[in-house]
Amino acid sequence: MPDPTLIRSRAAYNLASRVQILSCQSHRRFDVMHGLGYPLYAQRGQGAHLTDVEGNEYLDYLMGFGPIVLGHNNPVVKETVREQMEEGTVYSLCHPLEIEVAELLIEVIPAAEMIGFYLGGSCATTGAVRIARAYTKRDAIIRCGYHGWHDWTRPNDPGVPDIVSDLTSTHDYGDLNQLEELLKSRAGEVACVVVETVQKSGPPEGYLAGCVSLAHKHDALCVFDETKVGFRVALGGAGEHLGIDPDMSIFAKAISNGYPGSFLTGRKEILGAESTRSLWMTGTFQSDLLTLAAIRATVGELLKHDGISRQWKLGERLMAGANAAFEKAALSFRLTGYSPMPTPTVDESDRDRCFGILRSCLSKGHYLHPMHPWYLSLAHTEADIDSTVTAVEGAISES
Amino acid sequence: MPDPTLIRSRAAYNLASRVQILSCQSHRRFDVMHGLGYPLYAQRGQGAHLTDVEGNEYLDYLMGFGPIVLGHNNPVVKETVREQMEEGTVYSLCHPLEIEVAELLIEVIPAAEMIGFYLGGSCATTGAVRIARAYTKRDAIIRCGYHGWHDWTRPNDPGVPDIVSDLTSTHDYGDLNQLEELLKSRAGEVACVVVETVQKSGPPEGYLAGCVSLAHKHDALCVFDETKVGFRVALGGAGEHLGIDPDMSIFAKAISNGYPGSFLTGRKEILGAESTRSLWMTGTFQSDLLTLAAIRATVGELLKHDGISRQWKLGERLMAGANAAFEKAALSFRLTGYSPMPTPTVDESDRDRCFGILRSCLSKGHYLHPMHPWYLSLAHTEADIDSTVTAVEGAISES
Repeated sequence: MPDPTLIRSRAAYNLASRVQILSCQSHRRFDVMHGLGYPLYAQRGQGAHLTDVEGNEYLDYLMGFGPIVLGHNNPVVKETVREQMEEGTVYSLCHPLEIEVAELLIEVIPAAEMIGFYLGGSCATTGAVRIARAYTKRDAIIRCGYHGWHDWTRPNDPGVPDIVSDLTSTHDYGDLNQLEELLKSRAGEVACVVVETVQKSGPPEGYLAGCVSLAHKHDALCVFDETKVGFRVALGGAGEHLGIDPDMSIFAKAISNGYPGSFLTGRKEILGAESTRSLWMTGTFQSDLLTLAAIRATVGELLKHDGISRQWKLGERLMAGANAAFEKAALSFRLTGYSPMPTPTVDESDRDRCFGILRSCLSKGHYLHPMHPWYLSLAHTEADIDSTVTAVEGAISES
Repeated sequence: MPDPTLIRSRAAYNLASRVQILSCQSHRRFDVMHGLGYPLYAQRGQGAHLTDVEGNEYLDYLMGFGPIVLGHNNPVVKETVREQMEEGTVYSLCHPLEIEVAELLIEVIPAAEMIGFYLGGSCATTGAVRIARAYTKRDAIIRCGYHGWHDWTRPNDPGVPDIVSDLTSTHDYGDLNQLEELLKSRAGEVACVVVETVQKSGPPEGYLAGCVSLAHKHDALCVFDETKVGFRVALGGAGEHLGIDPDMSIFAKAISNGYPGSFLTGRKEILGAESTRSLWMTGTFQSDLLTLAAIRATVGELLKHDGISRQWKLGERLMAGANAAFEKAALSFRLTGYSPMPTPTVDESDRDRCFGILRSCLSKGHYLHPMHPWYLSLAHTEADIDSTVTAVEGAISES
């Protein structure tokens, strides 16, 4: 039975607040999670399980906010990375693994004609913006969704200059009319439309294809941000799933089952152009060899175990079971969207009760985030899913 | 005897040009190195040695462009990282290792009162700019040196908007008069002065202290970019070496002997301020646990083996020997600056001959970069240094 006091988590958080800048951690929302009674500090992960610093074990449905697609501490990835470590982790020269992994990604991702390696999703998306601005010789950006923390995607945030903010417009997910209005109002100025492909209950019919065609109609490029979606909905993300080829796509998180590298793909006409070749986007670790080794192993394991279908099937089972339980109790909480990344929604009216139900699942050993998309992994079993549905049913009946 | 044809390196480069965006690699200058006859692809590193894809082995004096300070494939770092891998690499929660490493860094770096973790030097420096802009409520930046690839530090590059470029001014290293003129000409606008602390032959007397005092005189912050310098000249970089406390400092590269994380340190008055706490600078891997484990091991090994003095001593031996050989032959090539990072200089008049001499050291198994600062490691021995000096002498006499 989990210890619900979370004393160690709270003590660690208090200590961290004194010595760390917490606004640059992955866990920016821990104030919120703290308030909701969620643990703040992990000790270890194994397969589909996460253990917090109190020693409480949970079935994990957040998987590092997305990276862990095979399971924590996956033996195949670990072995591949360990082999690369024996040969060194970084050199002043290139390494043949870069070419091998670039060729592999071009083979398995339909829209990928060339590959650029970066560190983290924020940098890869910023790379796409740099490439689009250089290619189109325009400065404005129209964004939609979450693209990390860099200036161009955080208009009007503290510390972001007003004139930088003014270059970025935001359109609402699914609203092609609004996107076209923005493109018209900044005619001749927009370098690219950047869209996080899967949000809320997933892309409305025709929306993502519409983003590409509207961008092109206005001589802008279209970038699909597949950071959360790639290697989950399909290897090539929502673009592959829906058969749409944007100009560029961004991949991170699930590509390597837990290593920090990211990559950008797209059309050779753009990525091989002199305007791209002449850019300066260099970083010491931007083809991090351990990430590359992990990508190779992750692609291999996903292909070998039919990992994409597996995520869809597990997600469908979870969504069906949890949604039926909430519906039966006349509660508004639902998991929506593509089943490899079930996304929570709740009405304001019974939000507190629904969040309380998720919180009480914690004490039954199931980590169910109230707001962020959930993720499955190949380490989750049907029995795991069923036990979580049973926990939800129990928590509802006790609520 | 090394194979000087570099056929495999050239073949790999041709292949990579077709499938990769090479402008985002670490190795942006490989066109230049290719032209100078240097290998482009490494196969492995071990201790102070680097093996290229032809099988040629070199004593490495570039060490991954700086990260490798203990030696390639260091057993203590490797073992520490392997232990962390057994517990997982990334979670949705924080991990106690973050606090442990933050406290360790605060203990060993004099000017460090709080720590923020990032990925890569570019992101940590961009984080400092974001913090300074939020703290001062100003937008302009005065930079000096190399700070990576993000927009604010690449004014007038292709793909960087003109209005973003206009926010950044650049002053010449060592020129406090010019810095003061810039601060006056943008009175009330400058958020921070960002300085790469060690360039060329090192900071002139009073220069770095002058940067801090001039910035403060104009109500701006001063950021020391110690990306190449930290854990080499001193653990705390040139700031510690010279006893100067800037408002913030950036560390990357040598901190972890080959892992991609970076960190930012500085004064609690700024880093603990509400203006910093309220920022959004979050990334999934911004407290990469393998990097944190590697930082802990690297600090431990540097302290245990008196690693900073060791780098100074090895560097002095190398600089003295190589410079004497070039001077005796009346050639202009010199290694200058702080000895843990000897920096090459050469006159235009005999540049081709001097570069030819360095090139011919390659065929004797010594990797001597003609332009970038060189680096030592704790895996280099006095005998290694002496063999390199002998190789330089031989190459000069054959030239």
